[in-house]
Amino acid sequence: MSPLRFTAETSSNGVLERDFIVGEVPGVLWSPVSGSDHAPLVLMGHGGGLHKKTPALKARARDAVTTWGFTVVAIDAPGHGDRPRAAEDERARAEFRQAHATGDAERFEAVSVRYATSLAERAVPEWQATLDALQNLPEIGVEAPIGYGGGISLGTAIGVPLTAIEPRITAAIFGGGFFVYEALVEAARRITVPIQFLLPWDDEYVDRESTLGLFDAFASREKTLHANPGDHRTIRWIGVDNEFLARHLGRVGTSPA
Amino acid sequence: MSPLRFTAETSSNGVLERDFIVGEVPGVLWSPVSGSDHAPLVLMGHGGGLHKKTPALKARARDAVTTWGFTVVAIDAPGHGDRPRAAEDERARAEFRQAHATGDAERFEAVSVRYATSLAERAVPEWQATLDALQNLPEIGVEAPIGYGGGISLGTAIGVPLTAIEPRITAAIFGGGFFVYEALVEAARRITVPIQFLLPWDDEYVDRESTLGLFDAFASREKTLHANPGDHRTIRWIGVDNEFLARHLGRVGTSPA
Repeated sequence: MSPLRFTAETSSNGVLERDFIVGEVPGVLWSPVSGSDHAPLVLMGHGGGLHKKTPALKARARDAVTTWGFTVVAIDAPGHGDRPRAAEDERARAEFRQAHATGDAERFEAVSVRYATSLAERAVPEWQATLDALQNLPEIGVEAPIGYGGGISLGTAIGVPLTAIEPRITAAIFGGGFFVYEALVEAARRITVPIQFLLPWDDEYVDRESTLGLFDAFASREKTLHANPGDHRTIRWIGVDNEFLARHLGRVGTSPA
Repeated sequence: MSPLRFTAETSSNGVLERDFIVGEVPGVLWSPVSGSDHAPLVLMGHGGGLHKKTPALKARARDAVTTWGFTVVAIDAPGHGDRPRAAEDERARAEFRQAHATGDAERFEAVSVRYATSLAERAVPEWQATLDALQNLPEIGVEAPIGYGGGISLGTAIGVPLTAIEPRITAAIFGGGFFVYEALVEAARRITVPIQFLLPWDDEYVDRESTLGLFDAFASREKTLHANPGDHRTIRWIGVDNEFLARHLGRVGTSPA
């Protein structure tokens, strides 16, 4: 098993931010400066083409630390952020550009699905290795409850197959904003933990019905869909239950910091 | 204009419950025993075959009074609760029984739509007359912000056309659980106030797509859909934004009682 090695550390406004590496995967861990004794651990995924410290992700992570005392972890997806691009990543990017330039919607969808499938296949074992290494840290251990904190698009394409095979994840936030494919729906059918699902109501590219089909597929007895107008880039999330992870990871009743 | 006449009064646990009548329409007003100086007024609709003091409605009303200091009003729909049934109501009930007994789904939908349309046509002016009379009460006046508090099924079939023509209503909670028809979708297209929409994900009778079409139709810039598993009788509403009306009627920041 690859150990976790911390490579940088900063702190501001009560939040400790530590860069780390596990094997060849760079990640970042946010936690309260005051310590985090087996606090719930939330896994956050970034969108396609983005990286582990994308401003929106970072803001959500810091908020989860300061409001609930969570520990939050993000890693760069294969070929994203600080990671080198394999030949496959370069090819996929070139294909995206071409499909977009020619306005070929069918090809755009085919390229998206093929690339998301490949990224998820590579990212799932990386997340599992990261979890193994994090559980070796004394402040996390095997005691920390674990939730998947989203987000939409690539974060869901990776998070759904991860949650389907990873019993350590006991609650998850997923969402739309990307092309849903059959393997993902199959994985969703094997998921029984509580799910919060965020649907951008007006996505420019993605057929709404296919995303509703993904929500439908989760075998979870408790699952809630929240939809707001907008596409996955412009959407403002209003009226979403912000206590979802805290409730399921055992932090409701904790007084917000 | 018919004045409002109070006919009975009780109080318990800090909530004053006053029965009233406006013209021939009986209603009930819940408010804080401690007084309600121009507090937000919430209109609640009951489901088909039910009445203004149905336990679930009463519990939500009392909760809104004690949590937010709202005033809540409910009235019996035509032919419901304490009201006499017109020939039309008796005929609709007989038709329902027959369609249900013969398992004729198409006829069941046709009867439902015809009856909901008739109830809404009669109930909308009754709600407006009730509002007029309530605004003559000094503790409500024209200053109290007004919201429509749901609920699903018949409450929405009446609430949507009411909100479409009633500028006094500035935020509304609607939902699914009944057959959506074109006149309702037309009315929704004229609504621009913030909407919270509750969708029972697994209704036994109602096509999910038609209910999503109703949500889609609202012209509101701010609208949020919440879906949970279950039909409109068995559903447990988890993760729904309970502050929606308080936020839009100006009560967030008010310390819950």
